Amino acid sequence: MELYPVAIEKLIEEFAKLPGIGYKTAQRLTLYVLNLPRDEVDEFANALVKARGTIKYCSVCGNYTDTDPCAICSNPNRDKSTVCVVEEPRDVIAMEKVREYNGVYHVLHGAISPMSGKGPDSIRLRELISRMNGSIKEVIVATNPNVDGEATAMYISKILKPLGVKVTRIAHGIPVGGDLEYADEITLSKALEGRREI
Amino acid sequence: MELYPVAIEKLIEEFAKLPGIGYKTAQRLTLYVLNLPRDEVDEFANALVKARGTIKYCSVCGNYTDTDPCAICSNPNRDKSTVCVVEEPRDVIAMEKVREYNGVYHVLHGAISPMSGKGPDSIRLRELISRMNGSIKEVIVATNPNVDGEATAMYISKILKPLGVKVTRIAHGIPVGGDLEYADEITLSKALEGRREI
Repeated sequence: MELYPVAIEKLIEEFAKLPGIGYKTAQRLTLYVLNLPRDEVDEFANALVKARGTIKYCSVCGNYTDTDPCAICSNPNRDKSTVCVVEEPRDVIAMEKVREYNGVYHVLHGAISPMSGKGPDSIRLRELISRMNGSIKEVIVATNPNVDGEATAMYISKILKPLGVKVTRIAHGIPVGGDLEYADEITLSKALEGRREI
Repeated sequence: MELYPVAIEKLIEEFAKLPGIGYKTAQRLTLYVLNLPRDEVDEFANALVKARGTIKYCSVCGNYTDTDPCAICSNPNRDKSTVCVVEEPRDVIAMEKVREYNGVYHVLHGAISPMSGKGPDSIRLRELISRMNGSIKEVIVATNPNVDGEATAMYISKILKPLGVKVTRIAHGIPVGGDLEYADEITLSKALEGRREI
């Protein structure tokens, strides 16, 4: 039985290591790459090496950056007294896309997860505490609305409040455009709990 | 609004060029790559460049290979008088996995597709005809059982039969383990048509 030449098998293997990509998809991607012009493949390979090589964590907020501090932390127009705490760099992008938030961020790179044995030391919590130098007035906790994210939010609130920092949590409720009928009970209960006078 | 640093955006773009990968998935893959050890990323990049750089088409059968002729065409134990015609290199792999076929292959790199304007000249048909030097006794057409594959099979039969070559088509029918009840009408009709005495 002859299978693919070694170089092709190797590339299939590499693609198959990526999350959510199985052998069949890896095979399809590889055969696609083999049909690309050689310079486009080189460009892809260069992008991989360059992204991994030039990207580091911002020493202030922990977000991915190519300059240190990152573009947000070094922007004089951003409000340094408000820190939004998120789990991952992609959450920063999601927040930035809203174009409403003008404070800075703190990326935890994970969440406390008692179920999978991830304690407070496994995320960037110590770095968050060390940022509380008196100039920070509010910490908005925007971790995900699931068990781990909520546990992390509670933990942050517990350790920051004694330092005199206002800790808030983003609101949970019915998504805009959503339908009451299809909302799950927990979301609905959160929506009721967070009701406001209009 | 701050988005990802340039090097990250570039890698997301590159991933998003791959078939079946949208922006969100490309973003997920990119962030995964950024968390990999640097040598693993280099290995991935090298696999890309190497696969594209060292792979060529076998001058005999048109399959991907790193040696010319390919391992199958140059294997003295394979029966050179039987040629199995397939659309793509991945079909060769599918056939080889069965471990029953001992002839050689001819990869068309496509199929005749009147609907999308792909005529006989757009696939490796001329190369197939030029292989008919008298030593080839049977051509098994294993193009896909869809409109394009059938059109290609008919065309091959029409041009090879005058040369005195036996042209056969792989059988269509109910897949083994399949259920009559769930077979579509065309498959069922093909299965009836191809019935054999037992």
